[in-house]
Amino acid sequence: MKTSPLDKDTIAALSTAPGVGAIAVIRVNGSEAFKICSKIFRKKNAKSTDISKLESHTAHYGDIVHKSIVIDDVVLTVFKAPNSFTGENIVEIACHGSSYIQQQLLQLLVKEGCRLASPGEFTFRAFLNGKFDLTQAEAVADLIASHSSTSHHVAMQQMRGGFSGKIKVLRDSLIDFASLVELELDFSEEDVEFASKSDLKKHVISMQAILDKLVRSFELGNVIKNGVPVCIAGRPNAGKSTLLNALLDEDRAIVSDIPGTTRDTIEDEIVLEGVRFRFIDTAGLRATTDSIETQGIARTHQAMKLASVVIYLFDVHELSSTELQKELDQLKQHMPSAELIVTGNKIDKEDIGYTKKEFAGFKNILFISSKEKQNLEELKTKLIDIFDDKSADIPETIITNARHVEALQQTFNALTRVKEGLDKKISGELLASDIRDALHYLGLITGEVSTDDLLQNIFSRFCIGK
Amino acid sequence: MKTSPLDKDTIAALSTAPGVGAIAVIRVNGSEAFKICSKIFRKKNAKSTDISKLESHTAHYGDIVHKSIVIDDVVLTVFKAPNSFTGENIVEIACHGSSYIQQQLLQLLVKEGCRLASPGEFTFRAFLNGKFDLTQAEAVADLIASHSSTSHHVAMQQMRGGFSGKIKVLRDSLIDFASLVELELDFSEEDVEFASKSDLKKHVISMQAILDKLVRSFELGNVIKNGVPVCIAGRPNAGKSTLLNALLDEDRAIVSDIPGTTRDTIEDEIVLEGVRFRFIDTAGLRATTDSIETQGIARTHQAMKLASVVIYLFDVHELSSTELQKELDQLKQHMPSAELIVTGNKIDKEDIGYTKKEFAGFKNILFISSKEKQNLEELKTKLIDIFDDKSADIPETIITNARHVEALQQTFNALTRVKEGLDKKISGELLASDIRDALHYLGLITGEVSTDDLLQNIFSRFCIGK
Repeated sequence: MKTSPLDKDTIAALSTAPGVGAIAVIRVNGSEAFKICSKIFRKKNAKSTDISKLESHTAHYGDIVHKSIVIDDVVLTVFKAPNSFTGENIVEIACHGSSYIQQQLLQLLVKEGCRLASPGEFTFRAFLNGKFDLTQAEAVADLIASHSSTSHHVAMQQMRGGFSGKIKVLRDSLIDFASLVELELDFSEEDVEFASKSDLKKHVISMQAILDKLVRSFELGNVIKNGVPVCIAGRPNAGKSTLLNALLDEDRAIVSDIPGTTRDTIEDEIVLEGVRFRFIDTAGLRATTDSIETQGIARTHQAMKLASVVIYLFDVHELSSTELQKELDQLKQHMPSAELIVTGNKIDKEDIGYTKKEFAGFKNILFISSKEKQNLEELKTKLIDIFDDKSADIPETIITNARHVEALQQTFNALTRVKEGLDKKISGELLASDIRDALHYLGLITGEVSTDDLLQNIFSRFCIGK
Repeated sequence: MKTSPLDKDTIAALSTAPGVGAIAVIRVNGSEAFKICSKIFRKKNAKSTDISKLESHTAHYGDIVHKSIVIDDVVLTVFKAPNSFTGENIVEIACHGSSYIQQQLLQLLVKEGCRLASPGEFTFRAFLNGKFDLTQAEAVADLIASHSSTSHHVAMQQMRGGFSGKIKVLRDSLIDFASLVELELDFSEEDVEFASKSDLKKHVISMQAILDKLVRSFELGNVIKNGVPVCIAGRPNAGKSTLLNALLDEDRAIVSDIPGTTRDTIEDEIVLEGVRFRFIDTAGLRATTDSIETQGIARTHQAMKLASVVIYLFDVHELSSTELQKELDQLKQHMPSAELIVTGNKIDKEDIGYTKKEFAGFKNILFISSKEKQNLEELKTKLIDIFDDKSADIPETIITNARHVEALQQTFNALTRVKEGLDKKISGELLASDIRDALHYLGLITGEVSTDDLLQNIFSRFCIGK
């Protein structure tokens, strides 16, 4: 890809979360980083400090000074190219965490020759300098956004090059074949066969199997990244909100043990054994002629279609087993792929013996009390079990990114054309072109092939300062 | 003061602002900091890393590992006692800025033997280890909370020991006198005079003058710290809200130039030339018999009493000069100490010549248009001028803390008793006791004298991680 002159600028940004904290870290990156920071920083009791003379990976206590006024006392850490996050010279300034100081310091850096960094620009520099490929850079953003141990684990593995490694193996072997096919073209008059067509076909088939497995892992990858969508459905008075609150409350209590995490707690999500479950709000389900209510029910049906799990909740005192069967039969029309957990609520109100007898004909039915928080653990275990079943047969590498799926799918299609071409014995030129297509799409994933639009699209999703 | 066993714990906290950022910094402090962090950190490509063997003030790229799972890759910086913020061993871990990772890392540190730090506990350790006195520690909190260049400047000066130095000089000279008086007590049978009573009295008087100046600086210190309270008063249709918005909007536009600062923008405040002006909302002023409206007006009068500046706004087309005079006469009854800026609004509607003629009899009157943003600069200059006038005759050291004022006032009172005692030629014992009182109150300011309650009260106001 083309690099723009902007990529030579020395850039600065607040790298820690915005707002007031004990400290804040401002990152300065680029060829002029040391020169610019030397103008405003001096070590304690020094008249001036030449940062370029300081050793890499050392921290220094001193003052930020502008026109002989001390703006703050800070700890400045030096990272010299190429041993830094971006591969360029970096200065990290840890200042006191007031918004005012952050602002003053950034303004001062701009005055002395920095440009404020765009979102993701530090990671983009790291990519330009070969510190990361694209999937690794994308994983950085996923890592920062991760909310559960599974999403964190997947992002971490991707950042450390697990997925890239897999793609590289596929690409390298395809390049070997491509070069043999291209070689044949050079010697086409002599009618030699460098690349064994049957070997190539075998290879294409095994590649497609790997690609297919990766593509199929996306369904799981998506729920890992965004949470398993769970829909609690049932009649209006079945106790859906009480159940949701009971599930959420316990979770919240755990989360808020650690100060500073509450701000990011997202409503209607729980994390169980490292897996995030995202609850979709639904209106109560009941037969109605009211048009507004009918719309609400249509939306509930829509939510059930999107869900991976539907918890059907009913009041054990309201429905007979016959009525329950009828409701479940209706329900199943609206949930083609989701797993169903049938859950009888309000068992605190009455003798459980009667309830168990009445619904004895239903397998896998759960009885709970949302109000008294009875048997909620069983329900949670059920949710986890469903996730574990779904994730039992998955490859080690999991795709979480729609862009990757698209490129893998396009690679797969190009390989199908290669396979068909081999069967039809098409010309070497056409075969080579299809192989090049496949290589192109694989290259898009890791960034060996990229366009400005693609890069813009990827890095603009980052937060500032990364 | 007594130190508690808790002060020996190794403590950890998120030191950057809560929420999601590119990076977050977790600080670990105490005697076990190196040992605990060595259990979870290893440098890239190393099997294990003994942090105690790393040099102070060096940064190291590596992994946080728990049960062979990599939680994050981080940059870890080592600060060895006594060359650290607290004077104890410190490890700062810069991790990826997701809430999930922050939480995981803190949990892991707790598991390995850290305790989560209380608010201000790092600064408290610095105080215990003699890195700071109390006024300097308090200044750290003020610095983090500062919103304008003046409040920042005052906090910065206090943090660097400006105020403490002043108190120390006063205290040392008083200690000299105290010891002479106490010496006389030991030799009381011999009737010698070590301390010249007239010198002591002179000294007490000059000390009181300094104390008085410091106490008086609090009025200014308070407006610097909390903003100059400004009240815009006037009839309901005078255009008060439009003026406020016009003033605020321009300011907001400037502030939001720097990403990440908007979150902390506080409504109804502007910063002009480094001074914060805080606008107090008021109801419109007019003669009324409506009881609710009367209450609103009473509140406006109350606001005017609290304000340092009242901008009286009127519509130049609504009032004649006679009516204006009448309104101003009424107004002045309700503002015993505030400065008044009389401001005619809506000059965009008509010929300015007529307006100038009509109100020629008023000195220092301003004519503006809030709607068209005409002459707003003049109004701002006026605000700044008033602040500058008020701050012309102030000592170099400014008190911004009510606790300090109280202690200074009590010192002053104890010195008054010393002075009266000297006049009345009271016994050496009583004199020595009054001097000890004065010393006690002075010592409270810097923390030479402190109680657990006082320390608790001061440090609990800090944010976590500082």
